[in-house]
Amino acid sequence: MNIQNLSREQLQERLAVLNEKYNGYKSLELKLDMSRGKPGADQLELSNDMLDPALLGSFKASNGFDVRNYGILDGIPECKKLFAEIFGVPSDNVIVFGNASLTIMYDYIAQCMIFGAGAEPWAAQSGIKFLCPVPGYDRHFSILEQFGIEMVNIPTDKNGPDMDMIDEIIKDEKVKGIICVPMYSNPSGITYSDETVRRFAALKPAAKDFRVIWDNAYCVHHIEDTHDTLLNIFDAAKEYSSEDFFIEVTSTSKITFPGAGISALAASDENIKAIKSRMTVQTIGYDKINMLRHAAYLKNKAGVDAHMLRHAEILKPKFDAVLSTFKSELSGKGIASWTVPNGGYFISLDVCEGCAKRTVALCKEAGVTLTGAGATYPYGKDPEDKNIRIAPTFPSRDELCKAVEILCLCVEIAAIEKILG
Amino acid sequence: MNIQNLSREQLQERLAVLNEKYNGYKSLELKLDMSRGKPGADQLELSNDMLDPALLGSFKASNGFDVRNYGILDGIPECKKLFAEIFGVPSDNVIVFGNASLTIMYDYIAQCMIFGAGAEPWAAQSGIKFLCPVPGYDRHFSILEQFGIEMVNIPTDKNGPDMDMIDEIIKDEKVKGIICVPMYSNPSGITYSDETVRRFAALKPAAKDFRVIWDNAYCVHHIEDTHDTLLNIFDAAKEYSSEDFFIEVTSTSKITFPGAGISALAASDENIKAIKSRMTVQTIGYDKINMLRHAAYLKNKAGVDAHMLRHAEILKPKFDAVLSTFKSELSGKGIASWTVPNGGYFISLDVCEGCAKRTVALCKEAGVTLTGAGATYPYGKDPEDKNIRIAPTFPSRDELCKAVEILCLCVEIAAIEKILG
Repeated sequence: MNIQNLSREQLQERLAVLNEKYNGYKSLELKLDMSRGKPGADQLELSNDMLDPALLGSFKASNGFDVRNYGILDGIPECKKLFAEIFGVPSDNVIVFGNASLTIMYDYIAQCMIFGAGAEPWAAQSGIKFLCPVPGYDRHFSILEQFGIEMVNIPTDKNGPDMDMIDEIIKDEKVKGIICVPMYSNPSGITYSDETVRRFAALKPAAKDFRVIWDNAYCVHHIEDTHDTLLNIFDAAKEYSSEDFFIEVTSTSKITFPGAGISALAASDENIKAIKSRMTVQTIGYDKINMLRHAAYLKNKAGVDAHMLRHAEILKPKFDAVLSTFKSELSGKGIASWTVPNGGYFISLDVCEGCAKRTVALCKEAGVTLTGAGATYPYGKDPEDKNIRIAPTFPSRDELCKAVEILCLCVEIAAIEKILG
Repeated sequence: MNIQNLSREQLQERLAVLNEKYNGYKSLELKLDMSRGKPGADQLELSNDMLDPALLGSFKASNGFDVRNYGILDGIPECKKLFAEIFGVPSDNVIVFGNASLTIMYDYIAQCMIFGAGAEPWAAQSGIKFLCPVPGYDRHFSILEQFGIEMVNIPTDKNGPDMDMIDEIIKDEKVKGIICVPMYSNPSGITYSDETVRRFAALKPAAKDFRVIWDNAYCVHHIEDTHDTLLNIFDAAKEYSSEDFFIEVTSTSKITFPGAGISALAASDENIKAIKSRMTVQTIGYDKINMLRHAAYLKNKAGVDAHMLRHAEILKPKFDAVLSTFKSELSGKGIASWTVPNGGYFISLDVCEGCAKRTVALCKEAGVTLTGAGATYPYGKDPEDKNIRIAPTFPSRDELCKAVEILCLCVEIAAIEKILG
């Protein structure tokens, strides 16, 4: 029953039925939260053994350094090695930071603003711009907005952002970079194709101080057995000698503990040198006890992959629940489309044009908190008001099923209201 | 035997004796490090029990929040309370950060550069200056130097910096602030007198965006039973409604673990609001497991004080060793003076004018690494080339005794060389 084909009377009838159902939900006074990509309580239990002090042995890093004391700017060797394996780069091209890759990105852009990226400080160049593949991650946009960097939307499809458009726009030397999530993208869950990654590597920006913030937050976060693979950006960049354009980051926030993980950056020799020369003034070094704890617990990439299977076991039923309810409640009605990711933390739902805000508001009123409509676009402005980010991980499966039922109902109500005008 | 009174022949004779002794030390090929304020190995052992996971209970902060997950921008309530008690301010005026107050200060100044302190961004105002009480902390100077902020030396005596000079200089609105260690100052170990603190509170800078970075790193770091007290800057500021000028920071780096502690900031309501509005873009929150670990282990100010007694037990013999060797080897010779601190991590040694660099170089050649001469002054330039920072905490007591003997020898050699010309 595609609602686009219904008569005005049929729509009114249908709306009355849906509203009755909706009011029924409202009376339950539910409080369900699908707003953020937070791991659920059961996922937090998975890494508790990492807190066993026995893992810390005599507190010595592999280079003999006592991790309890000051020192080691760029991270203990075994942690650099672990992230080097994950990134697929040499250890020398890795720096280990504190508990958030968000902070790495913020600090990197802050320092480009003040000191520049090998050229005049960005703050001294008026009207600079960043390209933002959309839908995208709201916290990326907040950083750029806080620094007053103009954001330009770049549409994305299943292969990644529109590279033809990017090639064209970067002829403007005011365009200083791109910020993106290349694997299991937030919120669509898509992974950039090999061709897209190669085109990133081949970019020829007019700006010599151009930077791509390659936020590989979900690099090992598979949910399905058949999982995506992402071409190594530094391997691809080597062919074009474009390594200096790329700053890759990741963290263990969704591997071990979101509140107490470790994060890391991979970059070219030149960029590592520049970053270290600045960070040596900002810190003596990040938390090395937590680094040793992570290295001893996760051991290597294989250890991380094994650990991620336990997360996937918890996450797959949640993603399946959302997707099967979408299928049963929304399919064939002509009111929504959505992505079916193999990993990551989100599903991207597109409702009818002009209906996202209304859908989210209806949900809110019925006790279901979603990520704000518009959040997946720079400045919170979805030009078509149709994208909603679905974050299925935090609620229990029962709560989630209830929340998605209500969401589907709200999607349809908003669509019919829109048609009826 | 004041060497200033010796004849040229007597000095030459004395120098020959000292040099023979010096060459004896050199042949030992020692490797002694007194360069940084690092806790010694035995101090690191004191906090190992903090790593017991039992302290984390069911991972719930006092507000019921699971510390393993994302969230809580400004720190868990029990940690805010702990630091509030240490600072002597309400919990609402505290934010808990990551493992280094150095990073808090860096980020605060970075954000003043980009966004300003309630006025035009500092980076947009050319020729801005900061006042630096000297001798002072090299890492403070490095921050200001990296941001291109001109540093102005302010002489310090046993009561703190020269407040008359400060009152005069801050009539220049290009002077944006002061950075200082008000208690057990680095390197002199002096604590600002109540009168000095009140004069700080009463400052009338021309710049409305003036900030005092009150780096209270050693607020509970007593060594002697008779210890210093520092007037609460926010209490003093209340009388003059100057609270907005002060940003106070501290950390547990020298309470628990230097590499894995927690840090905190205290500020006025207005400043807390501004800082939070920026940091919410930089981070979702700092390591809350480590916060809970600290709060559960240290409990409250009394718990911290009790813990610090154990550090003092280890540190007092080291400070005593340095001071007694200074007394026996340097007293009455007219070649040196030094501070006798009741707490903190350093002793400030003044050698003959023009002799600090030579003294440090002689030590280095004999295997004793000291903080570089000049490091206690902005731009590494001690105008009189006479101050040397002594950091007695890291070496064992035996190593320390040997190192200080050699140091005293080098002080005298350099002094005699200087007189002989």
